[in-house]
Formats: sequence, C-alpha cells, structure tokens
Amino acid sequence: MLPGGNSFLVTTQHRGIISNPNCTTAVTLMALYPLHQLFTVTRIFASTYQAVSGSGMKGMEELRLQNQQLVVSEEVVTQVYPHQIAANLIPQVESFLPNGYTTEEMKMENESRKIMHHPTFRASTTCVRVPVYRAHSVAVNAEFEKPVDIERAREALLHMPGLKVVDDPETQRYPMPIAVAGKYDCEVGRLRRDHAFENGLAFWVVGDQLLKGAALNAVQIAEELLK
Amino acid sequence: MLPGGNSFLVTTQHRGIISNPNCTTAVTLMALYPLHQLFTVTRIFASTYQAVSGSGMKGMEELRLQNQQLVVSEEVVTQVYPHQIAANLIPQVESFLPNGYTTEEMKMENESRKIMHHPTFRASTTCVRVPVYRAHSVAVNAEFEKPVDIERAREALLHMPGLKVVDDPETQRYPMPIAVAGKYDCEVGRLRRDHAFENGLAFWVVGDQLLKGAALNAVQIAEELLK
Repeated sequence: MLPGGNSFLVTTQHRGIISNPNCTTAVTLMALYPLHQLFTVTRIFASTYQAVSGSGMKGMEELRLQNQQLVVSEEVVTQVYPHQIAANLIPQVESFLPNGYTTEEMKMENESRKIMHHPTFRASTTCVRVPVYRAHSVAVNAEFEKPVDIERAREALLHMPGLKVVDDPETQRYPMPIAVAGKYDCEVGRLRRDHAFENGLAFWVVGDQLLKGAALNAVQIAEELLK
Repeated sequence: MLPGGNSFLVTTQHRGIISNPNCTTAVTLMALYPLHQLFTVTRIFASTYQAVSGSGMKGMEELRLQNQQLVVSEEVVTQVYPHQIAANLIPQVESFLPNGYTTEEMKMENESRKIMHHPTFRASTTCVRVPVYRAHSVAVNAEFEKPVDIERAREALLHMPGLKVVDDPETQRYPMPIAVAGKYDCEVGRLRRDHAFENGLAFWVVGDQLLKGAALNAVQIAEELLK
C-alpha cells in the first residue's frame, strides 16, 4: 500500500473500485477541500517536501544509513534514490512526463479533480524529496472564485475532521514533520491572505502520509462504505 | 556578512550605499532576471528550501551535532533554531509580520522590485529551513506579460553569466544542494511551461548563498564599480 495512488475493491453495496489517492494529494486536500467548499478553488501552486517514508521502509533505511555514513565521514552509499538524500534535496519524485512535470506532480491536479468533483481545477506542483523520515509537507498558494475571508477560512479548517490547526507565529507554533510523524491527524498552519493573488490563501500543511495517504485512508474509505 | 540583506559603502565615483541583496532573492533572480528581460515577469509564487548555512557557522554546527545525536539515539539539543532542524523542516525564516508572511518572505518582493527596477512585481513566498548544510533551493512559478517560449527561455538561461543550466530529466540531472555547495555558479533546472498559468514558466534554482548571496556578490558589486 505504501507508495500511494493505489486502488482497492470493497465488496459492499458500493460496486466498483474506490481509489486511495496519492499521498501528497491526500494531505493537501485535507486543508484545501474545506476551503474549496467555502470559496471554490480555481487553481493552486504547490511545492512539496516529501519524506523518505514515501518510498517505504527501504527509503527510511537509506536515509538512516547515509546520515550515519556522513557522521563518521564514510563514503555515502546510494541504493534506493538516484542521488544521495542525506543533507540533500532531490527535485524528482516518480518519473518525468513530456510536459516536464513528473507523474507525482500531475497527480495533484488529476486526483484532486476526481476527489473534489471539480474538472476545471488546475495545479502546478513541484515535488521534492527531502531528508526527513516521516510526514510530507506542502506549501500551497490557492486561488478562489468567491472572496476569501481569513476568519471563515480558519473556522472551516478548525472544524475539518482529521485536521488540526497549528498556527501561532507569535509562539513559533506551526506544523512540522517531527511533530506530525506517527499521528493520524494532518496539521495546517501559516494561513495567510495570499499576497500575489487578488483572491487567494497561502498555507502549509503536513501529514504522516503513511497513515493519511495510505493505510488509515483505506480504512476510512471502508468505514464510510459500511456506515 | 552572512545573513544577507546587508549594505556596504563603496568609495569610488558611485556615491552612496549599494545594497547586497537577501540571499534567496539573489539566487532566485539569477534565473528570473534573464527570463524577465525576455518576457517581463508580473508575479511569482516561490517556496524556498534554505540551508542552515544561512544562519552562519553556528547553524551548520547545530545540524551536524543534532545529526550525530540522532545517530547515537541521544537527546537532541536545540540552541540556534527554535526547533530541531535535523530530520525536520521549520517553516519560519526570520520574524513574522502582521500580514502573516515573514520578513524573509517579503524580501523576495521588496528586493526584487529594487533590483529589477520593477515596482509592480509581486511575489508570494514561503520560506522553509531544511536539514541541508549549504546552498539554498527555490521552486518558482513565474507569470509573464509577453508570450513565453521555452526554447528562448532556455537560451537566455544558458547565456546568463554565473548561472549553469542543469536540466536533463532523462538522465536524472537537475540542480541539487550537494552538487552546488562550494561553487560560485548557481544552477537552474526543471524548466517547464507552467501548467497553471496561461503564460508562465516553472523552474528550480539552487545557489550557494554563502557565495552568491553574500561574499561573492559583494565582490562582484565592487568589481562592477571599479570597471
């Protein structure tokens, strides 16, 4: 189940296949969807900061080993990723398409359109692998049709099940992967009126995609069907 | 000189203060400026991946110590940053403004306006500290006034002094901090027609801001004046 974007069959009244969405898309939509319900999203620009757990246990083991090799000044061995990931960034997740985006990057648009039933939604995404063990983070700039209101936005996020608002800049509280790793809830913060959209919001959302993006989400879809 | 955004006085024919720009702004503009000259940029959405060297030697030492503490399962000690940076992301660089952006984030707009002599340019930026020792990376989505042409864009980047184009997805070549650390040139790659702008380009630019953002840039400004 790990790499996300997989489908599974549920044998209840529902007939057919329910897709378990791509993990960065799932984490992004936890915050974007309640905002979309209020203001109708038109497009987003997103940059991801994806943990090595997205590649399963072998990704986590590679980062652990490479960190160890760096600490004792040994040569760094690369097996899972095309390049060293410890103390580095790899601006490639999955494979490249003719348009210059990766398959992972295009899922943000394609899968969001399906999940939100919003066929004109557009997303331009850059997916980057970062030297973090667990939990994917996404910086999002979102444009909306209806006038945004920051207080209504915050209220909607506060009421979204499975999402926690962690957003108090004064006390340096914002979502971070080490705080979210191992938790079922996604966290959103850095919410602000977007400075370069006439009518937009910027935010930062973090989720342990091993839970939200794969296993937990599959269980929640099944629970929904059995209600 | 390290934290960028500092000014210094040059005592030649030029009278007054020449500002040495903020380091992420300097790195971003190395790629954005030649594109702006061709197509006239209107706005960008940018997300940064900033190395600990942005905080000077003490930032690099903090990451090194924390990585060591994680490897031997010791308690992680935090001194320079408000939170653990090893195996983590901190979505705060500098201090928060009333509009929800940080001072570092607003520099991308303010300093770019000055450097490009472009008072209507807009930038919405999210600045994130990442567990990388040296070289800042920036994911940029840029909108332009004139129709963009990807081949002319690539040509302009190839001819920009101080910038290298590293962009061959087929062979998994793109800019990465470990490849750029210690180099004078910035590197740009992942160049593509932007999927969510009618008329835009997306790219990924990496630069060792200790060089481009501070010391080297100061030297280059001085050289320019002495010509």
